[in-house]
Amino acid sequence: DFVHALENDIKPAFGISKDEFDSYISNGIINWGQPVNDVLEEGQLRIRQTINGEMTPLVSILIEGPPNSGKTALAAHIALLSKFPYLKFCTAQTMLGFSELAKCQQLKKIFEDAHKSSLSCVVVDELESLLEYAPVGPRYSNNVLQTLKLLLKRPPPKGRKLLIIATATYRDILEQLGLLPSFSKVIHLANITTGQQILHVLNEIEHGFNNDEMKYLEKKLHDKKVWIGIKALLDRIEVARQAEDSSRVQRFLTQLEEDAGMI
Amino acid sequence: DFVHALENDIKPAFGISKDEFDSYISNGIINWGQPVNDVLEEGQLRIRQTINGEMTPLVSILIEGPPNSGKTALAAHIALLSKFPYLKFCTAQTMLGFSELAKCQQLKKIFEDAHKSSLSCVVVDELESLLEYAPVGPRYSNNVLQTLKLLLKRPPPKGRKLLIIATATYRDILEQLGLLPSFSKVIHLANITTGQQILHVLNEIEHGFNNDEMKYLEKKLHDKKVWIGIKALLDRIEVARQAEDSSRVQRFLTQLEEDAGMI
Amino acid sequence: DFVHALENDIKPAFGISKDEFDSYISNGIINWGQPVNDVLEEGQLRIRQTINGEMTPLVSILIEGPPNSGKTALAAHIALLSKFPYLKFCTAQTMLGFSELAKCQQLKKIFEDAHKSSLSCVVVDELESLLEYAPVGPRYSNNVLQTLKLLLKRPPPKGRKLLIIATATYRDILEQLGLLPSFSKVIHLANITTGQQILHVLNEIEHGFNNDEMKYLEKKLHDKKVWIGIKALLDRIEVARQAEDSSRVQRFLTQLEEDAGMI
Amino acid sequence: DFVHALENDIKPAFGISKDEFDSYISNGIINWGQPVNDVLEEGQLRIRQTINGEMTPLVSILIEGPPNSGKTALAAHIALLSKFPYLKFCTAQTMLGFSELAKCQQLKKIFEDAHKSSLSCVVVDELESLLEYAPVGPRYSNNVLQTLKLLLKRPPPKGRKLLIIATATYRDILEQLGLLPSFSKVIHLANITTGQQILHVLNEIEHGFNNDEMKYLEKKLHDKKVWIGIKALLDRIEVARQAEDSSRVQRFLTQLEEDAGMI
Amino acid sequence: DFVHALENDIKPAFGISKDEFDSYISNGIINWGQPVNDVLEEGQLRIRQTINGEMTPLVSILIEGPPNSGKTALAAHIALLSKFPYLKFCTAQTMLGFSELAKCQQLKKIFEDAHKSSLSCVVVDELESLLEYAPVGPRYSNNVLQTLKLLLKRPPPKGRKLLIIATATYRDILEQLGLLPSFSKVIHLANITTGQQILHVLNEIEHGFNNDEMKYLEKKLHDKKVWIGIKALLDRIEVARQAEDSSRVQRFLTQLEEDAGMI
Amino acid sequence: DFVHALENDIKPAFGISKDEFDSYISNGIINWGQPVNDVLEEGQLRIRQTINGEMTPLVSILIEGPPNSGKTALAAHIALLSKFPYLKFCTAQTMLGFSELAKCQQLKKIFEDAHKSSLSCVVVDELESLLEYAPVGPRYSNNVLQTLKLLLKRPPPKGRKLLIIATATYRDILEQLGLLPSFSKVIHLANITTGQQILHVLNEIEHGFNNDEMKYLEKKLHDKKVWIGIKALLDRIEVARQAEDSSRVQRFLTQLEEDAGMI
Ligand SMILES: Nc1ncnc2c1ncn2[C@@H]1O[C@H](COP(=O)(O)OP(=O)(O)OP(=O)(O)O)[C@@H](O)[C@H]1O
Ligand SMILES: Nc1ncnc2c1ncn2[C@@H]1O[C@H](COP(=O)(O)OP(=O)(O)OP(=O)(O)O)[C@@H](O)[C@H]1O
Ligand SMILES: Nc1ncnc2c1ncn2[C@@H]1O[C@H](COP(=O)(O)OP(=O)(O)OP(=O)(O)O)[C@@H](O)[C@H]1O
Ligand SMILES: Nc1ncnc2c1ncn2[C@@H]1O[C@H](COP(=O)(O)OP(=O)(O)OP(=O)(O)O)[C@@H](O)[C@H]1O
Ligand SMILES: Nc1ncnc2c1ncn2[C@@H]1O[C@H](COP(=O)(O)OP(=O)(O)OP(=O)(O)O)[C@@H](O)[C@H]1O
Ligand SMILES: Nc1ncnc2c1ncn2[C@@H]1O[C@H](COP(=O)(O)OP(=O)(O)OP(=O)(O)O)[C@@H](O)[C@H]1O
Ligand SMILES: [Mg+2]
Ligand SMILES: [Mg+2]
Ligand SMILES: [Mg+2]
Ligand SMILES: [Mg+2]
Ligand SMILES: [Mg+2]
Ligand SMILES: [Mg+2]
Repeated sequence: DFVHALENDIKPAFGISKDEFDSYISNGIINWGQPVNDVLEEGQLRIRQTINGEMTPLVSILIEGPPNSGKTALAAHIALLSKFPYLKFCTAQTMLGFSELAKCQQLKKIFEDAHKSSLSCVVVDELESLLEYAPVGPRYSNNVLQTLKLLLKRPPPKGRKLLIIATATYRDILEQLGLLPSFSKVIHLANITTGQQILHVLNEIEHGFNNDEMKYLEKKLHDKKVWIGIKALLDRIEVARQAEDSSRVQRFLTQLEEDAGMI
Repeated sequence: DFVHALENDIKPAFGISKDEFDSYISNGIINWGQPVNDVLEEGQLRIRQTINGEMTPLVSILIEGPPNSGKTALAAHIALLSKFPYLKFCTAQTMLGFSELAKCQQLKKIFEDAHKSSLSCVVVDELESLLEYAPVGPRYSNNVLQTLKLLLKRPPPKGRKLLIIATATYRDILEQLGLLPSFSKVIHLANITTGQQILHVLNEIEHGFNNDEMKYLEKKLHDKKVWIGIKALLDRIEVARQAEDSSRVQRFLTQLEEDAGMI
Repeated sequence: DFVHALENDIKPAFGISKDEFDSYISNGIINWGQPVNDVLEEGQLRIRQTINGEMTPLVSILIEGPPNSGKTALAAHIALLSKFPYLKFCTAQTMLGFSELAKCQQLKKIFEDAHKSSLSCVVVDELESLLEYAPVGPRYSNNVLQTLKLLLKRPPPKGRKLLIIATATYRDILEQLGLLPSFSKVIHLANITTGQQILHVLNEIEHGFNNDEMKYLEKKLHDKKVWIGIKALLDRIEVARQAEDSSRVQRFLTQLEEDAGMI
Repeated sequence: DFVHALENDIKPAFGISKDEFDSYISNGIINWGQPVNDVLEEGQLRIRQTINGEMTPLVSILIEGPPNSGKTALAAHIALLSKFPYLKFCTAQTMLGFSELAKCQQLKKIFEDAHKSSLSCVVVDELESLLEYAPVGPRYSNNVLQTLKLLLKRPPPKGRKLLIIATATYRDILEQLGLLPSFSKVIHLANITTGQQILHVLNEIEHGFNNDEMKYLEKKLHDKKVWIGIKALLDRIEVARQAEDSSRVQRFLTQLEEDAGMI
Repeated sequence: DFVHALENDIKPAFGISKDEFDSYISNGIINWGQPVNDVLEEGQLRIRQTINGEMTPLVSILIEGPPNSGKTALAAHIALLSKFPYLKFCTAQTMLGFSELAKCQQLKKIFEDAHKSSLSCVVVDELESLLEYAPVGPRYSNNVLQTLKLLLKRPPPKGRKLLIIATATYRDILEQLGLLPSFSKVIHLANITTGQQILHVLNEIEHGFNNDEMKYLEKKLHDKKVWIGIKALLDRIEVARQAEDSSRVQRFLTQLEEDAGMI
Repeated sequence: DFVHALENDIKPAFGISKDEFDSYISNGIINWGQPVNDVLEEGQLRIRQTINGEMTPLVSILIEGPPNSGKTALAAHIALLSKFPYLKFCTAQTMLGFSELAKCQQLKKIFEDAHKSSLSCVVVDELESLLEYAPVGPRYSNNVLQTLKLLLKRPPPKGRKLLIIATATYRDILEQLGLLPSFSKVIHLANITTGQQILHVLNEIEHGFNNDEMKYLEKKLHDKKVWIGIKALLDRIEVARQAEDSSRVQRFLTQLEEDAGMI
């Protein structure tokens, strides 16, 4: 069938290389709990809908969650899972210094290219950055907003399919901007909220704490509530490891109390 | 008579082809209930007024309804029903990247062309997009607004007739912008609101659920209240069908609860 | 005397032709009630003041009333009544696509031309459109506003006379913009408010309802309150006439209830 | 002495002609009451201060009063009274269509010219118009505002004297814009407030009412309160005189009730 | 020592001439009370700090007080007292018509020149005017603001010293704009507040009132409270002197009641 | 190890010279209390994390504190401590007069250069100035904000490390602008709050007060509360020293009461 055929042809014909996608997942994907599961499942279902759906040639999802929650890495991961011949990662970082107009043209170009492939997946990372959104004012580029709104709803030519995976940090901003109805589905990616999930992460990374330290941490963390993104957690682990041996674990816990509201 | 003469001459002399209009009705028109009926009836009456009216050479209607309610498809459908020699579909999608000025000129051109045919119908899709309206600020193009206001009220030259069919999602925005008095009539297109209407849709589409599943759905849906647009409903049907056989129906119902407020 | 001399010389020396003015009165002037009378009377008095006044070489009036109340037609009508050698109709419709600056220059040119004739009348239609006023923001062209403010108060050269007739829909907007003190007189044009006035209109138009229908309508309408502009009323008559013979009258009455708040 | 020498040399060396100043006083100055007296007296005192003052080479006054109260005519009148060799009338009317920058340069030029004469008087008419002030927003030209603020406080070169007479309609606007401290003195010009003052005006104009009409008016007006500017009063007199002979007086009184709040 | 060396070299090497500084003190400095004393004392201390300080090569003070309180004259006076080889008076008056950019470049140039002298003093007069501040909006040039903020805190090159004396009318505006922390010291210059201080001024000026008038004024003023700036007081003295001999004193007192809230 | 290798190679390959960094620490670093300690400790830990961390090639800290608290000097000091081969000090002072665009390009260039060195440290001083932030409006450059947001989160190429040290005065502004989540850590630098800390400073500087004065100050200050930045304290010491010998100490104490809220 179609899916099988694709599996033998995963090298992107257009779009950028697998390497770029990998760079957004620099510390891998640690499946630390249900929130990660849910996003992955929805992603897989939407990939199948794009391939098989007869009434919906255009499928678009939005992954939204707090800073550092791992949105970018998960979006890149799902895009790679699709194995579509056209994969494209679209981010404000590569458009730094572009005028509003140049940004809009770049976005238009990316989607026009995507429309040329029979199966395409476009990641649109950090909508707020693309929109140049700033909460004071607030300010944003209405040009980019209008362009995104139209592109997110523009169906590919007859017979072609397009999956869009967008990420955003502030759902309410997108709601106010009227961007949410442009998506088939909006999925929330939650932060890490329990000590158990932190322990799960600590167990999966290579250069963590030693055995004694881990035992101590298990005792201290197993019944705690926290609120921290995976990316921030990895930073706190790293910096704690720079303290003197005797105080590494304590420093880690203190930080969780200060920065992750641990109680 | 006039109408009969027209029926033998349905090929548009100017304007774009029937194909483009068809593309906006990609999944046909399912007459799932009274809201659809009302819009179609008003449309037919206004077509006749345009042809026969002696005091009103310019007739303009606005179809407004929530996202995904099927506005664009119905507007295109009524335009095709008119069989006028000049048909034109006017949408922000084809003006992506245009400057405000270019947009205004394009709109002016379309109406000037329409004024050259003895009987013309212009669809103006998604007024908010044409106006580049964004609720935060709010922002919009006053140039386009003023241009639209004038064009919507500009009578064709003596002896010519023009029917305008516009669509919009947020009636209150247009009200605030003072656009409503520009229309002869504003018609509301409601969302699907009952399980019965959903069953009506399910019965009309080809690749839906199997007989057993339909029976189960009839039992579950026949007395439910929902709120969902026809386009969103078709998406929910498609994605539910991608789940494993055993869970397809349940997934569909869960989604209706989550996304369509089903109770 | 002066007036008599004018009566033999009604062909405008400069300015546009009587035809253009006629086009703004496409369905004639039906004297359906006192509001129409009042405006006509003030108009005639101000024409005389312009001709005879020794202390007021510049006379300016503003006709303001709700959408469709017949402002434009009445302003054009009064201008024609003046029979002044220079008549000019000034409207945003002929300046569509003009830059703010071009608009201001056009306005300035029109008034400079008017200042060249010994007796001139300039109609300035739809002030809000000329000002590009939009209620959201609100936005408007301050350039046009300042230009209009100055032109409305600029006296013609010694020995010349100028009558200005402006129209507007929203008196409070002009009040807020500080435009009202620029006029010698502001006259309100009211909507049709009684069933009797509607019957008056129905009796004056050619292609209305038949005798039986009229009898029925007289019975139904004679004691009703409504609120509808003459232009909207003509539209409702036309569309009702497109319904099947049996339901035309009923459809007309239903519309009056829906759109004209008839009780 | 200095003043005497000036009296023999009243023809302006630079600046515009007496004719232009006269055109702003087209219906003369009728001394209808104390408010007119007060303004004239302050004007004369400030003329003397400009000529004789040793510590104040720059004197600036602002005449502010409601629309039509006669500000422009009084400012022009006082300037003529000064008989200074350099007289200049500065108004937005002659800068219609100028860019903000061009306006500022023109203003600067006028004051630089004034600084070249040993005794100069500059009238700055309608500050709000020069500032392009519009109350909705509000909007105004900050460029013109800053330019005016500086020019109003810029002393002439050593040994030269400058009198500035400005007019404005809305004192509170200038207060908000911070323009008031720029003036040595702000004088209020009140509207006509009593029937007696109206009778004073009627007695002074040529083409007013006949003797019988005047008697009737004296009886009706002598104990009334009104609120109307001299310019509007002259207009009401003119328009009333256009009515039929029998109704002229009554029409005049009705208008005073409607437009001048007469009780 | 250093100071002594300077005293023999007071002619400015760069910067403008003593004449310009004198022109800002056209009526001299009358030491009418403690507020004047305080400002002068702080000025002298800061001059010494600039010369001798080892840790503070940059010293900046702001003199703020109501309109007409004498800020400009005192700032110029202190600058002259410093006898620094580089003196520069920086005012919006000399930048009238400059673009924002040109203003910023001029300011930058002035400070760069100041940095070239071993001891420099720059007066920055009327910060609000330089900032093009207008209270309605409010509006101001953020370019100039940012430029001033940076220049006010930019230390001169190693071994050089810079004293900045700025003036402003509205302390709260500068506070809101965040300019206050840029100054080492903010000094308030108060208005004249007692009749005694007015008498002090009257006794010091040449062309005041005669002996009898002064006696009368002493009796009337010695126990009064007022609120008036020195510059406005000098204007009131001048204008009162233009009245007839018999009413000069009374006019002066009336004005103090009206304009200086005398009680 | 790595650190050791670096210690033998502290001369910056690119970036600016140690001299520039020294100029920001013109009066040295006086360790007057715990707040200084805390910032230094966090700085050292983050330097180690940058060098050794395996999961965090990009480390960024923000030092925020009131005006004059010593932020700039401490940031420069920590950067020098890192001894990284690429050191760069980035400040609005060197971009005075740059357009927004030029600023963004400069910032981009600095970070692109930093990405070329295996170990880099970039100081970004006074974020508010770079953003051209003004509290009235408020106004700021959204271009610079978006550029900074992206640069602060842009990881260096594989195998390279980057430490960013930013300073800011108003934490809440950065919070509102959404800049805080861009930092790995935000550290508060407090003002001097006790008389003891002032005494600590007085004891460390060279040209302070003499022994008797110090004894008196110790008695007066040892139990006081104050609130003053180190930079302002040094200024108050300098200016007090300019007063006559007898009043120096008293003047110093009075100032602390007036400007540092001493009680
Ligand atoms: N389950 C996971 N989901 C996402 N990222 C993970 C997961 N486990 C580990 N990671 C690692 O955590 C980091 C997540 O960073 P990422 O940039 O995706 O976060 P983000 O939410 O996009 O951050 P930001 O709010 O700054 O955009 C990556 O380095 C990734 O390899
Ligand atoms: N009764 C119906 N009315 C309208 N569309 C229908 C109907 N039945 C089926 N459809 C199908 O539903 C879809 C309606 O989509 P359409 O784009 O018109 O919705 P819309 O309201 O314009 O959406 P949007 O808010 O995004 O503009 C089309 O694919 C159309 O073929
Ligand atoms: N008494 C009347 N006064 C005005 N118009 C009349 C009258 N009787 C009939 N009409 C007709 O009604 C129509 C009035 O339309 P008109 O464009 O003048 O309305 P309007 O108030 O200017 O509308 P809008 O608010 O759109 O500017 C014209 O076709 C005119 O011929
Ligand atoms: N006492 C008077 N003071 C001023 N104008 C007078 C007086 N008596 C008669 N007039 C006449 O009244 C008219 C006053 O008009 P003017 O343009 O000065 O009014 P204004 O207050 O400037 O009006 P606007 O508010 O439109 O600027 C002039 O024609 C003038 O000749
Ligand atoms: N003690 C004094 N301090 C300041 N000015 C004095 C003093 N005594 C007399 N003067 C005179 O008063 C005038 C003060 O005017 P100055 O322009 O300095 O006031 P200002 O506060 O700067 O006014 P503005 O608010 O318009 O800027 C000058 O002419 C000056 O010579
Ligand atoms: N512990 C300290 N921390 C910081 N600076 C110190 C310290 N001790 C002495 N100093 C000196 O104090 C001054 C601090 O000035 P700096 O410019 O760093 O302050 P800042 O907080 O950046 O000021 P601003 O708010 O104006 O940016 C420098 O001259 C520095 O040498
Ligand atoms: Mg991300
Ligand atoms: Mg649509
Ligand atoms: Mg009209
Ligand atoms: Mg005037
Ligand atoms: Mg001053
Ligand atoms: Mg600093």
